[in-house]
Amino acid sequence: MHLSRYFLPVLRDTPKEAEIVSHQLMLRAGMIKQSAAGIYSWLPLGLKVLKKIEAIVREEQNRAGAVEVLMPTVQSADLWRESGRYEAYGKEMLRITDRHERDMLYGPTAEEVITAIFRDSVKSYRDLPKNLYNIQWKFRDEIRPRFGVMRGREFLMKDAYSFDLTAEDARRSYQRMFVAYLRTFARMGLKAVPMAADTGPIGGDLSHEFIILADTGESQVFCHRDLIEGAIPPADTDFLGDLSPIVDAWTSLYAATDEMHDAKRFDTEVPAESQVTARGIEIGHIFFFGTKYAEPMGARVQGPDGQMVTLQMGSYGIGVSRLVGAIIEASHDDAGIVWPLPVAPFEVGLLNLRTGDAATDAACADLYGKLRNAGIDVLYDDTDERAGAKFSTMDIIGIPYQLIVGPKGLKTGELEVKVRADGTRETVSLEAGLARVIDLVQSGRVLC
Amino acid sequence: MHLSRYFLPVLRDTPKEAEIVSHQLMLRAGMIKQSAAGIYSWLPLGLKVLKKIEAIVREEQNRAGAVEVLMPTVQSADLWRESGRYEAYGKEMLRITDRHERDMLYGPTAEEVITAIFRDSVKSYRDLPKNLYNIQWKFRDEIRPRFGVMRGREFLMKDAYSFDLTAEDARRSYQRMFVAYLRTFARMGLKAVPMAADTGPIGGDLSHEFIILADTGESQVFCHRDLIEGAIPPADTDFLGDLSPIVDAWTSLYAATDEMHDAKRFDTEVPAESQVTARGIEIGHIFFFGTKYAEPMGARVQGPDGQMVTLQMGSYGIGVSRLVGAIIEASHDDAGIVWPLPVAPFEVGLLNLRTGDAATDAACADLYGKLRNAGIDVLYDDTDERAGAKFSTMDIIGIPYQLIVGPKGLKTGELEVKVRADGTRETVSLEAGLARVIDLVQSGRVLC
Repeated sequence: MHLSRYFLPVLRDTPKEAEIVSHQLMLRAGMIKQSAAGIYSWLPLGLKVLKKIEAIVREEQNRAGAVEVLMPTVQSADLWRESGRYEAYGKEMLRITDRHERDMLYGPTAEEVITAIFRDSVKSYRDLPKNLYNIQWKFRDEIRPRFGVMRGREFLMKDAYSFDLTAEDARRSYQRMFVAYLRTFARMGLKAVPMAADTGPIGGDLSHEFIILADTGESQVFCHRDLIEGAIPPADTDFLGDLSPIVDAWTSLYAATDEMHDAKRFDTEVPAESQVTARGIEIGHIFFFGTKYAEPMGARVQGPDGQMVTLQMGSYGIGVSRLVGAIIEASHDDAGIVWPLPVAPFEVGLLNLRTGDAATDAACADLYGKLRNAGIDVLYDDTDERAGAKFSTMDIIGIPYQLIVGPKGLKTGELEVKVRADGTRETVSLEAGLARVIDLVQSGRVLC
Repeated sequence: MHLSRYFLPVLRDTPKEAEIVSHQLMLRAGMIKQSAAGIYSWLPLGLKVLKKIEAIVREEQNRAGAVEVLMPTVQSADLWRESGRYEAYGKEMLRITDRHERDMLYGPTAEEVITAIFRDSVKSYRDLPKNLYNIQWKFRDEIRPRFGVMRGREFLMKDAYSFDLTAEDARRSYQRMFVAYLRTFARMGLKAVPMAADTGPIGGDLSHEFIILADTGESQVFCHRDLIEGAIPPADTDFLGDLSPIVDAWTSLYAATDEMHDAKRFDTEVPAESQVTARGIEIGHIFFFGTKYAEPMGARVQGPDGQMVTLQMGSYGIGVSRLVGAIIEASHDDAGIVWPLPVAPFEVGLLNLRTGDAATDAACADLYGKLRNAGIDVLYDDTDERAGAKFSTMDIIGIPYQLIVGPKGLKTGELEVKVRADGTRETVSLEAGLARVIDLVQSGRVLC
């Protein structure tokens, strides 16, 4: 992409309304623009990151055997009356009346919609297990939206719903999502820890929040230090096999959110030097809630013995838009964002330090073509800004690798390679610089 | 994808509530499920088609130089008050009041939101031209939603917005979208004709609807017969160059919707044998409306002479979810849907006529692996349904090519290749059948 044809409204100053660093940097990097309280437009750079995160989430859901659907944003209140949640859900639910005076709502979650679909379509235990997920915009009418996309009102969520014949089968579905989540977050460069969690308005018996540690986290969490560097299941994990050993390894060490914390157990089970007490950001939440929705909504299938059996269900959320902010909270420095390669909006930034100079333009055009041919996602700064502004922009927007090309270096056939994460700059030949970044990108694309 | 692990609730009977064939077939093929009046969930098969259509739209928008953003579904009423449309827009606008009693709405279109973004971010003519598009869910509270996704309330739309310094530049932006639309629809196997159209609530001076002819079309249209087979601009069209010759060739022949029809001109300009009067389905609509939004909303940039200039704008819509229905209206037979390959949910269907028979299972597993390795998107029917049901399902869901494998044929190393479009079936060796469908798919992927 040529920057001159792109739309990247970078801000030089930190906007006053932003309280936390991810919100500040997303505004400064021209990733988002507020449209109303807690409601944002995603500008091109922000949307690219959002799509890369979404793609990783999708790949890992598919790998775990979940099947993608797409449910509408506007739902009928009648469905929520069936489950009993319409009255119970508080003011966070955005209630809508349509032109025929029917009660509708903007879905904050979709247990009711998916249960109705399943109830009408699946009649036999032979069609189980099934896990259906969607990646769709949700709305929660927060009383005080803040922190940019971290606690917005309109947000993108991946929500999956599992259907099983027995509680034992449902536990296996739960384990598949547990393992998928470990892989999903690790692939984004995050160290997420699953923690025993409260079930809140979704309900149920068993629940884990996936939490990353960050000073700006919204809640206090407690865990064993070893979990922060826990082993990530490999890509060829057999999701049709027994995943208990993986899940047991992760859940055998203490980890709990504030609501579920047991100070006595923490002190007894975790040696003092391994006790971690920190702030955490929730990026995923999984639930097993048995027949909580299937029972009132009459979602049953015929079992092997011909008897009707009420379905055992779970639901599994990932805050896709929230992850954009969470990754920035976990990965930034004074100069701006430091994207982990797999979610970076562009993999390489190419800086032309003297646009209009024939030799520099030609060298950059050649490098741009070669990077593109190698399948690299490049942002080419071909604008007529001065060099200092170009350096600053590339650092704010956090592109992992930079090729810096100017007339001086070109006289000896050289350019600079800059690595955003550690700030190192090295002067090498054009060929060596090109080969170097291609190699860095290709080896860094998949973290696990 | 193994059908046994998929979610494909096919209906054997035609649902009574569906009036037109695309709606009937989408329900029968398990593509959608109604959630409320005019509001649908997209089941896996429907979502796959929707995503393929979306990908083609995106590719052609990018090719034409438009840049993708994503605007929220919920918008502030205040923005619409700035343009003067909040009161003017009728009951089709879904108005919402949030918990703080603020007036919001579910966006039926996004001229106001994008104009506000542009106004706050772009200050100089040197940043023009720009075209920003998004593919996002919209809502229009139709008084009588009908025809499935063809006239639903919640629908997926691609909407692009161009910003230029002068009306002459804006005309070039309009032409880029005009040409992009010709390519977009042709790539989906559709014969779309651009027709002079009324501008309706969007407003403006110049407008074309892109229409496909179908008996179930919602409006009467009139055009010169030659336009139905008009030349499609090639993939390497230079969108930075002069597109007037292409646009002039398409607009020099008569084509108009009912509202713009001039019977006298039609008779004068079009020879009787070339006059086409037919029903049409609108799948795209483009507008040039000058300063209609930029003026009241104060969207200006500094011109070359330092003076402030009000932006010239256009907007460009494609009904992405509507296209799913429109393609079916244009391409089906008595047995079901006949997908053009580029938008087919799967490219090849593999039918195992005796699941559980070791030789048939092994042959199918081998073929499935080889098709996948060749990059083919395959649906493998590995269920224990009887053969007749499997044939019927593959025909209803419209997979372009089928490989039919049973124990009888395998005795002589043979299978059947079926072409869905013409119904031909041919018995050939396993190797020949495999090579044949791989060749058919690869050559059919890009239509233009």
